[in-house]
Amino acid sequence: MHNIAVIPGDGIGREVISEAQKVLEVALPNHTATEFDLGARCYARTGEALPASVQAELADHDAILLGAVGDPSVGPGILERGLLLKLRFDFDQYVNLRPARLWPGVNSPLAEVKSGEIDFLVVREGTEGLYAGAGGVVQRGTSAEVATEESLNTRYGVERVVRHACQLAALRERKRLTLVHKTNVLVNAGSLWQRTFDEVVRDFPELTTDYQHVDAASMFMVDRPETYDVIVTDNLFGDILTDIAAAITGGIGLAASGCINPDQSYPSMFEPVHGSAPDIAGQGIADPIAAIISAAMLLDHLGRAEDADIVRRACAAELADRKPGQPVRTAEVGDRVAAAVEKRM
Amino acid sequence: MHNIAVIPGDGIGREVISEAQKVLEVALPNHTATEFDLGARCYARTGEALPASVQAELADHDAILLGAVGDPSVGPGILERGLLLKLRFDFDQYVNLRPARLWPGVNSPLAEVKSGEIDFLVVREGTEGLYAGAGGVVQRGTSAEVATEESLNTRYGVERVVRHACQLAALRERKRLTLVHKTNVLVNAGSLWQRTFDEVVRDFPELTTDYQHVDAASMFMVDRPETYDVIVTDNLFGDILTDIAAAITGGIGLAASGCINPDQSYPSMFEPVHGSAPDIAGQGIADPIAAIISAAMLLDHLGRAEDADIVRRACAAELADRKPGQPVRTAEVGDRVAAAVEKRM
Ligand SMILES: CC(C)[C@H](C(=O)O)[C@@H](O)C(=O)O
Ligand SMILES: CC(C)[C@H](C(=O)O)[C@@H](O)C(=O)O
Repeated sequence: MHNIAVIPGDGIGREVISEAQKVLEVALPNHTATEFDLGARCYARTGEALPASVQAELADHDAILLGAVGDPSVGPGILERGLLLKLRFDFDQYVNLRPARLWPGVNSPLAEVKSGEIDFLVVREGTEGLYAGAGGVVQRGTSAEVATEESLNTRYGVERVVRHACQLAALRERKRLTLVHKTNVLVNAGSLWQRTFDEVVRDFPELTTDYQHVDAASMFMVDRPETYDVIVTDNLFGDILTDIAAAITGGIGLAASGCINPDQSYPSMFEPVHGSAPDIAGQGIADPIAAIISAAMLLDHLGRAEDADIVRRACAAELADRKPGQPVRTAEVGDRVAAAVEKRM
Repeated sequence: MHNIAVIPGDGIGREVISEAQKVLEVALPNHTATEFDLGARCYARTGEALPASVQAELADHDAILLGAVGDPSVGPGILERGLLLKLRFDFDQYVNLRPARLWPGVNSPLAEVKSGEIDFLVVREGTEGLYAGAGGVVQRGTSAEVATEESLNTRYGVERVVRHACQLAALRERKRLTLVHKTNVLVNAGSLWQRTFDEVVRDFPELTTDYQHVDAASMFMVDRPETYDVIVTDNLFGDILTDIAAAITGGIGLAASGCINPDQSYPSMFEPVHGSAPDIAGQGIADPIAAIISAAMLLDHLGRAEDADIVRRACAAELADRKPGQPVRTAEVGDRVAAAVEKRM
């Protein structure tokens, strides 16, 4: 019996998570889902983004399924840093795993790529870098104001995520691993990443490895995405690269992710890459596929690879069936995918 | 009489700068060009990336034309930080101006855009942020190593570049200005940028303004590039976004830039966005268009807007004439563009 915590969150997060839950119910009958009402409403009610008691309850689950958090009524950063990033950091979810795949039938904005040609994995560090929340402001609001942000990087943190990326790359057919950073400008962190990478990959002689600056990688992702297999990179670069990856594979409505704690000392968390999209919330037109594929990643994490594959196949069938330009109806997509999963196609 | 300092630099930098100089000779007969041999060879010879005496000489010129610096023989960051960024910082080139335009006849990797549809300007801050060189390493090489990078942002620095971006946007047809940052995570610097932006744009009521997170902007640049007019952003985000911009407008071989000191207290510097490309150096196949358009930006800066337009028109004609897949011969491109400029077409 798996205990899954569900955080629908805000906006379309709530809508797409309902569909992911429909699918989970048939893919993993053997689970309990407990809903946690976190996000803008909880914050408005309690003044807290993540009450300590709720965090303790969450810690007691096997995995977390999250929709999206964020609302115009809440100041920038409050829910992101107070809830989403707090969970990633406190639950030590150091592998932020983001597959990029152009599914058959899905249109890429890139003219020359065909489905199957884009199939890579971004392993984004999840607990360090510029996301640490280090930095400050002095002379705020005056002409002398100074604001800083500090990127904190440890050998410990870099080594473990690079090693994980190596292990994932070693399981893949092409066995290629690319480190992305900005060693020519960020010489301190860049050197730590590069030296650690060079040492760790020595334990994986079967891998082909290379290094790219983040600016070059951003360009290559548009002009030669088929060359990537596994990318390992820091927290901020991973944030940017995975949105480019989403764009070239048919949009943020399809991009899934897992914030994974491979040591299992705390629950891992699975969430679509997209946000709460207040502009389209409440209309029932958000694509739930990203949330459903995130649920498939959750199944993988619980050791249910076969069920995960069934969910992914059902999503693939749904995508292949879509007519170009056909509007998405959130609940209908969930119904169809759940029905296909139920037939275990 | 304009005194122009020329730094060919390394690799293809030397090759493309020769062509830009050919064009400058005909576009601006009334100038002297003084070459400075900086880059990997100077560093190997002297152990210095930028000798103080050379820097003083450079300061005495009306503008600098730079090819590219960087060579595998020199460690990461040495020439970048010791020469390129040192000039940008010491010469207070706070406006790093990077136009993105899909020229007629040039193929974009994006399926749905047509030439003319992509035409925007990235105003990248050039003297602050993560490029400040603040940060350090302790316990280097041990399992306890910590490496930091600090982003330094001042009200002074943000305000001046935002104001400049507003002025540029006000001159354009669409008068749209987009601030790009990551205010939901980098709350200190993000808040400074957002508050400063909100205040400065009040002086420009004719502008339509908005804000985007850098990850969203990276995606939109691929999936709706035609929506951008002027983007203002910090140093690192600008670095990444302008490489995406280059990718969608036909590649780094066409992307020009100016590192501009609008106060004219020091010379401004004009350079292609591409690097020294050691892999193709010496073969005469690098596209000099980016360098030549950078020279056109230099002409603009010297108040020779008409000459600049002639150069750009000659480049446009060259690009429109290219057959798809036709290999570029660096010197021939320079010859043709220079000839067209000479006829003042
Ligand atoms: C919402 C935001 C804090 C988050 C991030 O920057 O990590 C999002 O962009 C993502 O990619 O999951
Ligand atoms: C070479 C490097 C230091 C430079 C930068 O990061 O600014 C380059 O990428 C650029 O965009 O001009």
